[in-house]
Amino acid sequence: MKQPFPFSAIVGQEQMKQAMVLTAIDPGIGGVLVFGDRGTGKSTAVRALAALLPPITAVEGCPVNSARPEDCPEWAHVASSRLVERPTPVVDLPLGVTEDRVVGALDIERALTRGEKAFEPGLLARANRGYLYIDEVNLLEDHIVDLLLDVAQSGENVVEREGLSIRHPARFVLVGSGNPEEGELRPQLLDRFGLSVEVRSPRDIETRVEVILRRDAYDSDFDGFMATWGAEDGTLRERILAARAALPKLKTPNTVLHDCAALCIALGSDGLRGELTLLRAARAQAAFEAAPTVTRAHLRDVASMALSHRLRRDPLDEAGSGARVARCVAEVLP
Amino acid sequence: MKQPFPFSAIVGQEQMKQAMVLTAIDPGIGGVLVFGDRGTGKSTAVRALAALLPPITAVEGCPVNSARPEDCPEWAHVASSRLVERPTPVVDLPLGVTEDRVVGALDIERALTRGEKAFEPGLLARANRGYLYIDEVNLLEDHIVDLLLDVAQSGENVVEREGLSIRHPARFVLVGSGNPEEGELRPQLLDRFGLSVEVRSPRDIETRVEVILRRDAYDSDFDGFMATWGAEDGTLRERILAARAALPKLKTPNTVLHDCAALCIALGSDGLRGELTLLRAARAQAAFEAAPTVTRAHLRDVASMALSHRLRRDPLDEAGSGARVARCVAEVLP
Amino acid sequence: MKQPFPFSAIVGQEQMKQAMVLTAIDPGIGGVLVFGDRGTGKSTAVRALAALLPPITAVEGCPVNSARPEDCPEWAHVASSRLVERPTPVVDLPLGVTEDRVVGALDIERALTRGEKAFEPGLLARANRGYLYIDEVNLLEDHIVDLLLDVAQSGENVVEREGLSIRHPARFVLVGSGNPEEGELRPQLLDRFGLSVEVRSPRDIETRVEVILRRDAYDSDFDGFMATWGAEDGTLRERILAARAALPKLKTPNTVLHDCAALCIALGSDGLRGELTLLRAARAQAAFEAAPTVTRAHLRDVASMALSHRLRRDPLDEAGSGARVARCVAEVLP
Amino acid sequence: MKQPFPFSAIVGQEQMKQAMVLTAIDPGIGGVLVFGDRGTGKSTAVRALAALLPPITAVEGCPVNSARPEDCPEWAHVASSRLVERPTPVVDLPLGVTEDRVVGALDIERALTRGEKAFEPGLLARANRGYLYIDEVNLLEDHIVDLLLDVAQSGENVVEREGLSIRHPARFVLVGSGNPEEGELRPQLLDRFGLSVEVRSPRDIETRVEVILRRDAYDSDFDGFMATWGAEDGTLRERILAARAALPKLKTPNTVLHDCAALCIALGSDGLRGELTLLRAARAQAAFEAAPTVTRAHLRDVASMALSHRLRRDPLDEAGSGARVARCVAEVLP
Amino acid sequence: MKQPFPFSAIVGQEQMKQAMVLTAIDPGIGGVLVFGDRGTGKSTAVRALAALLPPITAVEGCPVNSARPEDCPEWAHVASSRLVERPTPVVDLPLGVTEDRVVGALDIERALTRGEKAFEPGLLARANRGYLYIDEVNLLEDHIVDLLLDVAQSGENVVEREGLSIRHPARFVLVGSGNPEEGELRPQLLDRFGLSVEVRSPRDIETRVEVILRRDAYDSDFDGFMATWGAEDGTLRERILAARAALPKLKTPNTVLHDCAALCIALGSDGLRGELTLLRAARAQAAFEAAPTVTRAHLRDVASMALSHRLRRDPLDEAGSGARVARCVAEVLP
Amino acid sequence: MKQPFPFSAIVGQEQMKQAMVLTAIDPGIGGVLVFGDRGTGKSTAVRALAALLPPITAVEGCPVNSARPEDCPEWAHVASSRLVERPTPVVDLPLGVTEDRVVGALDIERALTRGEKAFEPGLLARANRGYLYIDEVNLLEDHIVDLLLDVAQSGENVVEREGLSIRHPARFVLVGSGNPEEGELRPQLLDRFGLSVEVRSPRDIETRVEVILRRDAYDSDFDGFMATWGAEDGTLRERILAARAALPKLKTPNTVLHDCAALCIALGSDGLRGELTLLRAARAQAAFEAAPTVTRAHLRDVASMALSHRLRRDPLDEAGSGARVARCVAEVLP
Repeated sequence: MKQPFPFSAIVGQEQMKQAMVLTAIDPGIGGVLVFGDRGTGKSTAVRALAALLPPITAVEGCPVNSARPEDCPEWAHVASSRLVERPTPVVDLPLGVTEDRVVGALDIERALTRGEKAFEPGLLARANRGYLYIDEVNLLEDHIVDLLLDVAQSGENVVEREGLSIRHPARFVLVGSGNPEEGELRPQLLDRFGLSVEVRSPRDIETRVEVILRRDAYDSDFDGFMATWGAEDGTLRERILAARAALPKLKTPNTVLHDCAALCIALGSDGLRGELTLLRAARAQAAFEAAPTVTRAHLRDVASMALSHRLRRDPLDEAGSGARVARCVAEVLP
Repeated sequence: MKQPFPFSAIVGQEQMKQAMVLTAIDPGIGGVLVFGDRGTGKSTAVRALAALLPPITAVEGCPVNSARPEDCPEWAHVASSRLVERPTPVVDLPLGVTEDRVVGALDIERALTRGEKAFEPGLLARANRGYLYIDEVNLLEDHIVDLLLDVAQSGENVVEREGLSIRHPARFVLVGSGNPEEGELRPQLLDRFGLSVEVRSPRDIETRVEVILRRDAYDSDFDGFMATWGAEDGTLRERILAARAALPKLKTPNTVLHDCAALCIALGSDGLRGELTLLRAARAQAAFEAAPTVTRAHLRDVASMALSHRLRRDPLDEAGSGARVARCVAEVLP
Repeated sequence: MKQPFPFSAIVGQEQMKQAMVLTAIDPGIGGVLVFGDRGTGKSTAVRALAALLPPITAVEGCPVNSARPEDCPEWAHVASSRLVERPTPVVDLPLGVTEDRVVGALDIERALTRGEKAFEPGLLARANRGYLYIDEVNLLEDHIVDLLLDVAQSGENVVEREGLSIRHPARFVLVGSGNPEEGELRPQLLDRFGLSVEVRSPRDIETRVEVILRRDAYDSDFDGFMATWGAEDGTLRERILAARAALPKLKTPNTVLHDCAALCIALGSDGLRGELTLLRAARAQAAFEAAPTVTRAHLRDVASMALSHRLRRDPLDEAGSGARVARCVAEVLP
Repeated sequence: MKQPFPFSAIVGQEQMKQAMVLTAIDPGIGGVLVFGDRGTGKSTAVRALAALLPPITAVEGCPVNSARPEDCPEWAHVASSRLVERPTPVVDLPLGVTEDRVVGALDIERALTRGEKAFEPGLLARANRGYLYIDEVNLLEDHIVDLLLDVAQSGENVVEREGLSIRHPARFVLVGSGNPEEGELRPQLLDRFGLSVEVRSPRDIETRVEVILRRDAYDSDFDGFMATWGAEDGTLRERILAARAALPKLKTPNTVLHDCAALCIALGSDGLRGELTLLRAARAQAAFEAAPTVTRAHLRDVASMALSHRLRRDPLDEAGSGARVARCVAEVLP
Repeated sequence: MKQPFPFSAIVGQEQMKQAMVLTAIDPGIGGVLVFGDRGTGKSTAVRALAALLPPITAVEGCPVNSARPEDCPEWAHVASSRLVERPTPVVDLPLGVTEDRVVGALDIERALTRGEKAFEPGLLARANRGYLYIDEVNLLEDHIVDLLLDVAQSGENVVEREGLSIRHPARFVLVGSGNPEEGELRPQLLDRFGLSVEVRSPRDIETRVEVILRRDAYDSDFDGFMATWGAEDGTLRERILAARAALPKLKTPNTVLHDCAALCIALGSDGLRGELTLLRAARAQAAFEAAPTVTRAHLRDVASMALSHRLRRDPLDEAGSGARVARCVAEVLP
Repeated sequence: MKQPFPFSAIVGQEQMKQAMVLTAIDPGIGGVLVFGDRGTGKSTAVRALAALLPPITAVEGCPVNSARPEDCPEWAHVASSRLVERPTPVVDLPLGVTEDRVVGALDIERALTRGEKAFEPGLLARANRGYLYIDEVNLLEDHIVDLLLDVAQSGENVVEREGLSIRHPARFVLVGSGNPEEGELRPQLLDRFGLSVEVRSPRDIETRVEVILRRDAYDSDFDGFMATWGAEDGTLRERILAARAALPKLKTPNTVLHDCAALCIALGSDGLRGELTLLRAARAQAAFEAAPTVTRAHLRDVASMALSHRLRRDPLDEAGSGARVARCVAEVLP
């Protein structure tokens, strides 16, 4: 398969790229939902991100990519204890995927040939320590979406079916794309994504021509194009690694915590997931900027993507949720 | 798996914590339904409760955690008669659970390999003498909810399927969380829960900051945090054990019985489950307070959680059901 | 399993208890439907009735409890001809029961291991000569309810499925509980029950306190409580046996037949099931009272439970069906 | 099983009894649909008819009751060519019957044990040369009703399923009962029944008492009751046999054919099934009366049961269809 | 099975008989849809047609009735190359037919016993070079109707299921009967039938008596009746064979092509199927009349049956589609 | 099977033919959707295209038609490395196709006989490097349409089912036909087709007669007809091959890119698929015309087929989408 279009070569769509980079720094932020019209390059961006991410170190042969031999699940009978490098897993949920392939299921072959009841891990196992991408959340069956969100939050896949009773770690960043034209998503579902961003087709001729030119260069002059942009991707990858290392040492002043709470109360966002995500995203942003301390500026920078999908709809306020967050930020965090 | 967030370290949410403690003292109270918006920490509380509960003594290898060898079901062919300590079982119903895993089913492996028709116990067996937790009752299929409530009330799991005819004890406290935004629950379903509580996001900045701080300490200074709050949990566990021991000796004056009946008649609650639950909860509360006798004060303390989900909707009374119970308590039990 | 709450110790609910006793005297009366709110003790009463009933004599090992060896179905291959005493069967239909377990089905184990097409009897076989209880008829699937009523009326279970063509006796009293709040039952369904009674929560404090006291005594002083009320149950059991013996010798004057027909015509009840049931219930009542002859007084006593569920709804008459029967009885049988 | 209630002992319901007798004389009339309220004894009448009918002569062991060895279907591999007497088959369609049992299916046992693809005949085979009874057509699934009517009309069961391609004769009289309260039947379905009759509960006390008395005698003095009414049934059986023998010799004047056509045109009945059935029923009636020639009087006698279910609904004519036929008969056949 | 009622003996219904004869002359005309009330003899006519048709010559044992050994499908492993005469296949689609029997399916017996993946041909194979009859298109499931029309048009059955990938010729004339009272058929479906005719019950007494008389003679004097009408059928069969032979030599003047196109444009019929069918039907009619050249008169004769089911509904024109075609023919082809 | 009707012999329908030729030159254009009434020859055109296309060179025995041995998927175990010529695959999706046949599935035969879990490729494998045709997209189940569009876009078939985890290239041109009368297609679906064209029945007599004449010649003088038109097809095939070769050398001036973007912005088409497809189609058109450089004229020529199905519906603009594109082209690209 041809190497994907480089992340850095994507024209515009800054907020989407920022959100993806933040989850690469701190996967605990918890998933990105990308809203946008058809044809705005959502799938391209995810495939580009997969190629950008630094590799992980995992036990050879471990079906859930465990970092240490003692973490491999018992049912996997992993013999080796050698550590190997693997690309960060980015698992793509194909349309028509069946529940048994998502969560794992009884291994029919072994059941039939050897009469053993063995577990055959599914996509959730493969996605552990990586990304799981759902193109068009709207087209996936509800019960599978619920299941994915549930596992994404608990970090563990619990399988109780076909006489199997299995659990294994399944920590991944869920990236979903949604088309607001195909109907609204349930608020419960929105809330479980850490960040949300909106993408739009560019409206000016120059940008659109630039998109066509780069796509054309990628098609017709692949090697030259990759030489340029692969280097850009390498630089970005180094910054992500540096930010990861800086994250634990980052300082969080109490005033920032107050800012988080005050902003969420002012916006009337339900629950406490809002401020926890806001804080984590601001920290990741600060680390990305190599700042020693999180500041109100970092909060402002990520507030919209952390909060705009958590607002209750306000029938008297015709502004979009992004505008409402911006207005509130201007008032509460001047 | 990392040890869960300590029960005592949960900020606020006093009524929810009280209800859970009362069921730990007397499981016969019969289940707790926690209403609340998303993100208010319902799942966190249940996992915390699991870590708080004192262990049980059970026959080694018994699939239903029997306390005595003679209570182990015949179909389990339990060989050992040794008693061992186990954590109080807290079984979590995963989304997408199938009915066969809930109630148990034919053991396919043995059927295929040995041609035997053996029973493979399900989650109801595992939950015996413990807790069964359903996150978001609304997302579970109706027929499974009905089935769980039915078993929770009879204390016995009767399996008539796939040529199997099995029964085993299944006494557990059912803890469910519900989101009133996702539609009302059927009155028949509400009535089968012993207690109900409502949780809300705190509305003041100080509390919200406190929540973030504790969550942060748990993440960044795990050992220090657990040292402090683990001790708190230990103290609470001792109080629960003491209350359990005190319960049979507790006195119940006749006037308290009259108070129960009078309050329920005044509220117009259907059936007699209301007063029976009210009485049991008041007794557990009295035992928790180490009081020698149940008093009207104990009734007042638990009336709302025992009764507010049993009221008929009154179209002329716009007050919430909690307020209606409080008003009635003030009049009938001054 | 702990012995159930004694039938005689149930506080109030006289009509329900009377209806159950009448079916114990003459099972040909044909089933009882108990209407009532949740929490009024319907399930408790059925379990109590099971403990009250006198045992039956049946062929050892016969799956349909036949009274004589020559009545055992051929497919059962019953070897023994010894007669043994068994408790009157009271079969409880669990929620989620599948049709194959109700009517019986192909014995999969024998089919797989021995390649034989044998019949594995279901709950209808087990209920022969006893009771079959459905808690909340409303929650059972329609096709299973239809099937049960059909068998209850014909007294025979005809199985035509999976290549099996089997029939066996299935004579039982069907006891169902229904909650009028969960929607009306179809008239066709109502008509197939012999008797119907309505239960309500008591409305006075003294009765409700008495309920709590007895339940408390049953829980806290089991042995003493059973000593008292078990004797009461024994007395009642003797009266039922005496009434059974007296039934064939009871005289039925022609005037009573005229009364039956006149009352049903006056009420406009469809079909002839009304008067046949009325007559049988009045006879059972007379036998219970050890009267030598059925009288108009006996008809009056059972008219409501035999007829009130067979009236057509009358939009111009706002009185309940019970009141309409009472009014009509007062006019026609003064 | 106890012998059923005798046909002759049924009180009233003359038209229903007449219709059944006519189909016993000429099965080609094609089925009876009995409309009526619940409890009017429709099932009792069908079981009584089964006991009344003369036996048939059939090849020993033939699954479709063939009259001659050469008519036995090849797939049945009937070895014997001996003729035996059997009761006229009356097959009762149980609720919940599956399509495979109706039409026949792959014999699973032989497929599994011997790897052969053999046909296991269904209820349609068993009903050949007899009756097939459906209690409450309304409760049967549409696709099974369609299938039965289709076979009833063609006289042949064509099975194309599970790799089988089988056909066998299936000539039977279809008797169905329907309750007009449970919704109207489709006109297409009505038209396929030869005759239709309506039954009602008697409205006078004397008749109703007579019903109760006979039922009581049947229950309490079985032998005496059967002695009386069994003889009545015997007389009726002889008349049916005589009528069958007389039928081929019966004369049908051309004027009677004109009367049939004129009456059907006047009534506006669709298709030609109306006059064909009317003619056959009138002939059977004439044969039953031992008349040498069909007359207009015989047409009048059966017109309502042959035609009233074939009328188009006329919104301007409020009279029932029976009354409309009667009025038309009075005008056209004075 | 008794020989069917002769085609020539059908009273009236000239258009239906004409349409069927035309498809017998040129099967490429593509199917007949017979509209009509119940009881108008549609099924009788199809069975009569089957007996009328001349036999075909086919390879012995070929499951698709191939005319030459080299045309037998490979999967059939036809050993013989002998040619035999067979009746023209007329396959009757039974109600409840399953898709696997229509298109063919995996041969389960061979799969189970020999582990081979062989194809078991279905009704479409059997119908090749003949007729396929669907009684009441309305009662067949939509997906099977779509499938049949699709195959009828392409002349090939493509099977892609259960791991099979098979294709075989399936050229047949589809004859369907529809009842306009049971709802309209989709225009897409109508268009795929070559011809459509409407049948009605005769409205005069003489014709109806004639119908009864012939049916009676067929029943009571079978041999005499068949002697007369069998000869008539023989004559008709000869004319069909002669017409088939004449068809290729028939001349089609260019003016007739212009007439076809002009008429279809005037009627506004969509697509080009209208004129192609009109032309083929007119040719077959000319051949039947032994005319050397197709003329405008032949077009007029068949225009209604070829076009009336292809008109768009015109809300301003209340005339039926048959009348609209007639009017247009009178104007365009005077 | 008879050779299909030649592509060149199709009368009129120029836009449809142009669109198909463009995809033959550059399959990356991405699919054609043909709208049109029934009977306008859509299926005929696709079968004709299949015969027109130049053959491909593929590895012998490779189930996905790989061009080089190293591209054959591992699961196929292709032994040979010989290259052979094959017709360009044109796979026809039959109605009633099941998902397992589309994407491929577990090979049941090998699973049963050898206990191996092998992959049996489906229609998507067979269509690789060719065409996949869906007649009447409207009649295909939604989930299969989504699946096909998804694969068509990614060029890869990802199978996660029945314990299989397989991927293989599946690059094909999707050709679908739709009937606007059977309901609108979802915008998301429309957007994924590269080009769309509309076909209509010709409205003048001469053209329609020409259609009939050619169809007649094809039927009656097959060899002569094919001689003429086969040569025409050969010429066209040569032009397609020449255009393919010219495509990489074609020049694309920057002004053309600006024109693309300007036109799409003016039309308000969402996403960037519009201009990318427009550009590719214009290039293919230029190559077909053997032009050295793409010009505005080429854009104008293909604008309607590349863009008209991507417009948002404009309730204030009653013109069809084709007219709106034409108007906009006239303004923006004068």
